[in-house]
Amino acid sequence: MNILLLNPNIRTDITDLMLQVGREAVAPGTTLIPCTAPRGVPYIATRAEAQIGGAVALEMLAERNGTFDAAIIAAFGDPGLFAARELFDVPVIGLAEAAMLTACMAGRRFAIVTFAQALGPWYEECVRMHGLMERCAGIRMLDGSFKQISDVQHEKEELLVELALRAVEENDADVLIFAGAPLSGLAARVAHRIPVPVVDQVIAAVKQAEALLALKMRKATAGTFRRPAAKPTTGLAEALAARLEHRDGSSDCVDR
Amino acid sequence: MNILLLNPNIRTDITDLMLQVGREAVAPGTTLIPCTAPRGVPYIATRAEAQIGGAVALEMLAERNGTFDAAIIAAFGDPGLFAARELFDVPVIGLAEAAMLTACMAGRRFAIVTFAQALGPWYEECVRMHGLMERCAGIRMLDGSFKQISDVQHEKEELLVELALRAVEENDADVLIFAGAPLSGLAARVAHRIPVPVVDQVIAAVKQAEALLALKMRKATAGTFRRPAAKPTTGLAEALAARLEHRDGSSDCVDR
Amino acid sequence: MNILLLNPNIRTDITDLMLQVGREAVAPGTTLIPCTAPRGVPYIATRAEAQIGGAVALEMLAERNGTFDAAIIAAFGDPGLFAARELFDVPVIGLAEAAMLTACMAGRRFAIVTFAQALGPWYEECVRMHGLMERCAGIRMLDGSFKQISDVQHEKEELLVELALRAVEENDADVLIFAGAPLSGLAARVAHRIPVPVVDQVIAAVKQAEALLALKMRKATAGTFRRPAAKPTTGLAEALAARLEHRDGSSDCVDR
Amino acid sequence: MNILLLNPNIRTDITDLMLQVGREAVAPGTTLIPCTAPRGVPYIATRAEAQIGGAVALEMLAERNGTFDAAIIAAFGDPGLFAARELFDVPVIGLAEAAMLTACMAGRRFAIVTFAQALGPWYEECVRMHGLMERCAGIRMLDGSFKQISDVQHEKEELLVELALRAVEENDADVLIFAGAPLSGLAARVAHRIPVPVVDQVIAAVKQAEALLALKMRKATAGTFRRPAAKPTTGLAEALAARLEHRDGSSDCVDR
Amino acid sequence: MNILLLNPNIRTDITDLMLQVGREAVAPGTTLIPCTAPRGVPYIATRAEAQIGGAVALEMLAERNGTFDAAIIAAFGDPGLFAARELFDVPVIGLAEAAMLTACMAGRRFAIVTFAQALGPWYEECVRMHGLMERCAGIRMLDGSFKQISDVQHEKEELLVELALRAVEENDADVLIFAGAPLSGLAARVAHRIPVPVVDQVIAAVKQAEALLALKMRKATAGTFRRPAAKPTTGLAEALAARLEHRDGSSDCVDR
Amino acid sequence: MNILLLNPNIRTDITDLMLQVGREAVAPGTTLIPCTAPRGVPYIATRAEAQIGGAVALEMLAERNGTFDAAIIAAFGDPGLFAARELFDVPVIGLAEAAMLTACMAGRRFAIVTFAQALGPWYEECVRMHGLMERCAGIRMLDGSFKQISDVQHEKEELLVELALRAVEENDADVLIFAGAPLSGLAARVAHRIPVPVVDQVIAAVKQAEALLALKMRKATAGTFRRPAAKPTTGLAEALAARLEHRDGSSDCVDR
Repeated sequence: MNILLLNPNIRTDITDLMLQVGREAVAPGTTLIPCTAPRGVPYIATRAEAQIGGAVALEMLAERNGTFDAAIIAAFGDPGLFAARELFDVPVIGLAEAAMLTACMAGRRFAIVTFAQALGPWYEECVRMHGLMERCAGIRMLDGSFKQISDVQHEKEELLVELALRAVEENDADVLIFAGAPLSGLAARVAHRIPVPVVDQVIAAVKQAEALLALKMRKATAGTFRRPAAKPTTGLAEALAARLEHRDGSSDCVDR
Repeated sequence: MNILLLNPNIRTDITDLMLQVGREAVAPGTTLIPCTAPRGVPYIATRAEAQIGGAVALEMLAERNGTFDAAIIAAFGDPGLFAARELFDVPVIGLAEAAMLTACMAGRRFAIVTFAQALGPWYEECVRMHGLMERCAGIRMLDGSFKQISDVQHEKEELLVELALRAVEENDADVLIFAGAPLSGLAARVAHRIPVPVVDQVIAAVKQAEALLALKMRKATAGTFRRPAAKPTTGLAEALAARLEHRDGSSDCVDR
Repeated sequence: MNILLLNPNIRTDITDLMLQVGREAVAPGTTLIPCTAPRGVPYIATRAEAQIGGAVALEMLAERNGTFDAAIIAAFGDPGLFAARELFDVPVIGLAEAAMLTACMAGRRFAIVTFAQALGPWYEECVRMHGLMERCAGIRMLDGSFKQISDVQHEKEELLVELALRAVEENDADVLIFAGAPLSGLAARVAHRIPVPVVDQVIAAVKQAEALLALKMRKATAGTFRRPAAKPTTGLAEALAARLEHRDGSSDCVDR
Repeated sequence: MNILLLNPNIRTDITDLMLQVGREAVAPGTTLIPCTAPRGVPYIATRAEAQIGGAVALEMLAERNGTFDAAIIAAFGDPGLFAARELFDVPVIGLAEAAMLTACMAGRRFAIVTFAQALGPWYEECVRMHGLMERCAGIRMLDGSFKQISDVQHEKEELLVELALRAVEENDADVLIFAGAPLSGLAARVAHRIPVPVVDQVIAAVKQAEALLALKMRKATAGTFRRPAAKPTTGLAEALAARLEHRDGSSDCVDR
Repeated sequence: MNILLLNPNIRTDITDLMLQVGREAVAPGTTLIPCTAPRGVPYIATRAEAQIGGAVALEMLAERNGTFDAAIIAAFGDPGLFAARELFDVPVIGLAEAAMLTACMAGRRFAIVTFAQALGPWYEECVRMHGLMERCAGIRMLDGSFKQISDVQHEKEELLVELALRAVEENDADVLIFAGAPLSGLAARVAHRIPVPVVDQVIAAVKQAEALLALKMRKATAGTFRRPAAKPTTGLAEALAARLEHRDGSSDCVDR
Repeated sequence: MNILLLNPNIRTDITDLMLQVGREAVAPGTTLIPCTAPRGVPYIATRAEAQIGGAVALEMLAERNGTFDAAIIAAFGDPGLFAARELFDVPVIGLAEAAMLTACMAGRRFAIVTFAQALGPWYEECVRMHGLMERCAGIRMLDGSFKQISDVQHEKEELLVELALRAVEENDADVLIFAGAPLSGLAARVAHRIPVPVVDQVIAAVKQAEALLALKMRKATAGTFRRPAAKPTTGLAEALAARLEHRDGSSDCVDR
């Protein structure tokens, strides 16, 4: 089965990092197909960037539609996730969603730890969007700037572990999530220093995509994630326009 | 004061309709500046369309930045609202937000009535996004298709009133909102047939924009709606890129 | 249009203060009619005082009924608000309600800052009564006593600003409300020192009353704010008794 | 121990009814002292009547202060309850509060059944005020009018039982409350016809008052129900004014 | 009336302590029948111990069924409470439930103070299970170990009072509960040192059991606490098996 | 990796059914180890049965501790789940938990459909226990009795599909769960007849157990699921007693 690992940001090094972490976790028979946003920002950190990045993600999915069996929107915060789930026929899951729901199976409350103040408000909206506020012990962000986004997990490793320890102690977290694509793989290096289970967002997402595929889930033709009816569009990217206008050759009513 | 009436959809006739309704409600000294999305769909009805339309709205705001004192994102569902509030220095409000918060002053629970089934799920997410589920009595949508989006409020007038009456009777609604840009102005025609107060979304939005202007609200430089720090971008529309990169000449720290 | 600015407390100097602040914000054509409670306390700060003050407010409204197009219950905490909304035919809004709902359009969470410890519990019940706990970042009160209620905003200006800054920093507030009638007008003086938008409660209330009037909202004849049926009374103030007994010449079924 | 059975309505026959029901449930050593409001309405059914009746209740408590060890505000809806709890030194409980909290010990969700449509909105606010919405299966009200408030429980007995049965079946209620002072004593007559436990509001209130007395609860001098500091008043009933101004000889700091 | 005071733990000295406290609070005519778990742990402190202790409690109730008119599951945390309420015909209440619901009548938010860190998570689940999170100001636990469970309330008296004072001051608690069977009776000794009402869990439970008996509540034959239909069992304790299989001679449909 | 498939009920045919469904979904390298409760009931349907079954599950886990890498408590309703998660060092997940969290990745709201009325209340408590009420569209149960528990999914296939269709249409469910161990495998047969994704509880549980194993989650030594300190016990099953008393040779502090 092919799982699209869609990075809605423009840094291919971050895509590579996630690909490397994910590949170690895939089951035999699963192939991860990486792709990186052709336009946007180096890492999505705000509502505005998520609005833009989510729209780009839809274009990327439309262009590659038919070449994958499931897709991961690989930015913590899940830009464009519900839109993609609605618009396409295969399972689409978010990095944040996968990490948080997985964490729920290891404790009552998860804490989210990330590398920049700017990410906090967007992450909180993401938790709320998934209806998981009751399960969230808190979101903690590092202060200060960093040198290189692709290296932030090494540069800040000590500070991130400290922040995680404080989240456990002061927020009564049962589980910990290092959030943000650039922190992928950090869990494996530092989990032994943290006294609660730590969820790696990329591994969680890959295993959840495999779970949805194992369940052979069909595309909804009812409910709120049924494919929207065809609608005329103007000025949109061709593949996305074709998908919205039902000109893309896929049937929206055929079971998968 | 200039208030931008931003239609994130591509139908200028709907923009004109809203402009007409809004103009009758403005206070002396307020000017409504209409604008219509250059690309997108005729009316946003789903999460996917809102993801795209919200991103287009940001481009529109960036292009016109400096020419208005406040902006209304004039689609019920508020695509891109929080992103815009974060990114720009002037007050930005949503059609849904304005209608719902205004309705809260006329009763405990408002009902939302609209013209198409497809709109329901997105509207529910909008109510939830604003933390107003407890104040919402329900969302009711007409079945069936319509001939022309610009004329749907006349074509379906009787059915919409019937649906409103059922919302009052069966959902215990205290207030009613006809939701969706194409229904702008309907309230004035049919409010006398409905036994609870009816909120017109455009009038509510115009008056709320005036309220925010009267309060002379400054742009936040703290909190979750402070302007994000400058960030490099690739491939985005020029005005939006300039805004994100802080190349647009406006300072993010000066009080307004 | 005439808007009754009803102070349910007995201090005319506080009424004057609110009148002065409100007059600067009214649209052309709006007249504010001040009135001050004939009995009660200098400023309502507790549940008991609100119970009493709210009942007095109903008497005041009944006596003046027919002379105003909308009314503001001008004490933060909104004593008697829902009772008044139910009993009278014109829009009635509360100072707290108007400030909080307006604040919701400038950020996710508002903080409430006030001048005395005693006010905290009542304000919290008010936030809860309006279903807005999720939107409230916290309520902060000054310690210690003050010399004169009419001058508390000047005497405590520095401390109130400090408290506001702490609310922004420690409670992650996006918007700030200086709450309590004696603090009316403070926002204009100190907003430039606070890094988030500040809502003046009186300006918010005046603009919201104007918004409801612009919407030409009718009195509900269904829903939970319909006028109660006539009921015999004993020993109540004459105008209020007449209103409750439907002896006041107004019809409860005529659309406004 | 003396328990004040305070009817905030003006019908002494309803007071007598509650007294009769309560007397059969008191423990040896408990005396019920009835009192009836000197002004107001025959039965409180709306927010406006509750605002007025609650203020009258405070006057009644102030006049009798010192003559009772605990008080019951004997109208379902609990007018003035939190104000009274704050203002006086002895335990004060509400008829609705006592019935609902007692019902919580017999099932997950209680249903409220009452005799008139007008009572519904006020009762819902009461449930919400006590933070018990999650425990409430629903509120059902009879349609139509009745002949005599003092006889409504006999006149409507069959309809009330039918409504109770529907609440059990359709709302999945585990427990039933017949709500409204005029329905006191009904439970004893019809409980055998209803397949879930039925709570009599007066018996619940009497036993809860006895429970609070058995616990020898002191008056709070901290927290949100501490007695408010002395405050000047104008024009209020003498005993209530004395209580608010701390001129009533009782100390607010002495433990009981 | 006979009230079973069921200690689901194995310490008879703790049973004796609760019996002594309870006996001072019973009304004339009430007899407390103590019983102590034949197997289990000295005091339940965790979810695992509650799972086991709750199952033992069901066996104890089944063995004694017919000899009591109501039962108290006398461990704060209420192990097996809902199961017992469902399975048996007489009222069954929990120590935590009784204490918390009683506390609700003395303030908006209660704080829970206990003697060991281990108890916190279980108590929080108990609060949540009863739908009372909104009414709970917080749960505070002592650090460190203690010498003897039966003497912990004396050994730690000063520390427990200090913790209570901090709960009042820092958590804004209106009422205080000393939680955990070994703390029974502590309230009477230290309530005068705590500035808010203090609820003794055993007294609360005894008075609530009396309240339910005064209400002559029947066993539900509908709703979620109706007795489950007969079901075959294997390997369970004889009395419990008989109860589950309806071989115990009691009818599940006869009103009590 | 060995995953214990623990049926807390006494029917080995149901264990076999789940084993068969699960085996088809395991990844290479995963082995399912079935076990069936030695005492209890044929299928857990009520709170009382869950209390008992959960305690038996703990004994089963203790006896087999060391022979498996993760465990599934294979009864929808998750008896003893949190207790087991706390007590043992390997990941333990519940059938309901796995199905519901997986369903969350396919839609906003899942509906639960099951084969007997008795299961409803317990399932609702399970949803609430996991903090997922907001994500649950409703729980629907068949009326009437069935012949054989092991064959109920075939006997009632048509009725279950009908109920599922009604849940989609009337409850606005986005995803469907057939709940209850005896319905394992039904999804594969009927999913094509249901217009939304259908989650098979056993497949979901197996894949979630694999996900937790892929994440190499350590046992918490902090937070609310840390292993409880050693405690003396009396009269418990030997292996469980040894686990509670820390006599079982496993260290509670060593990372896994």
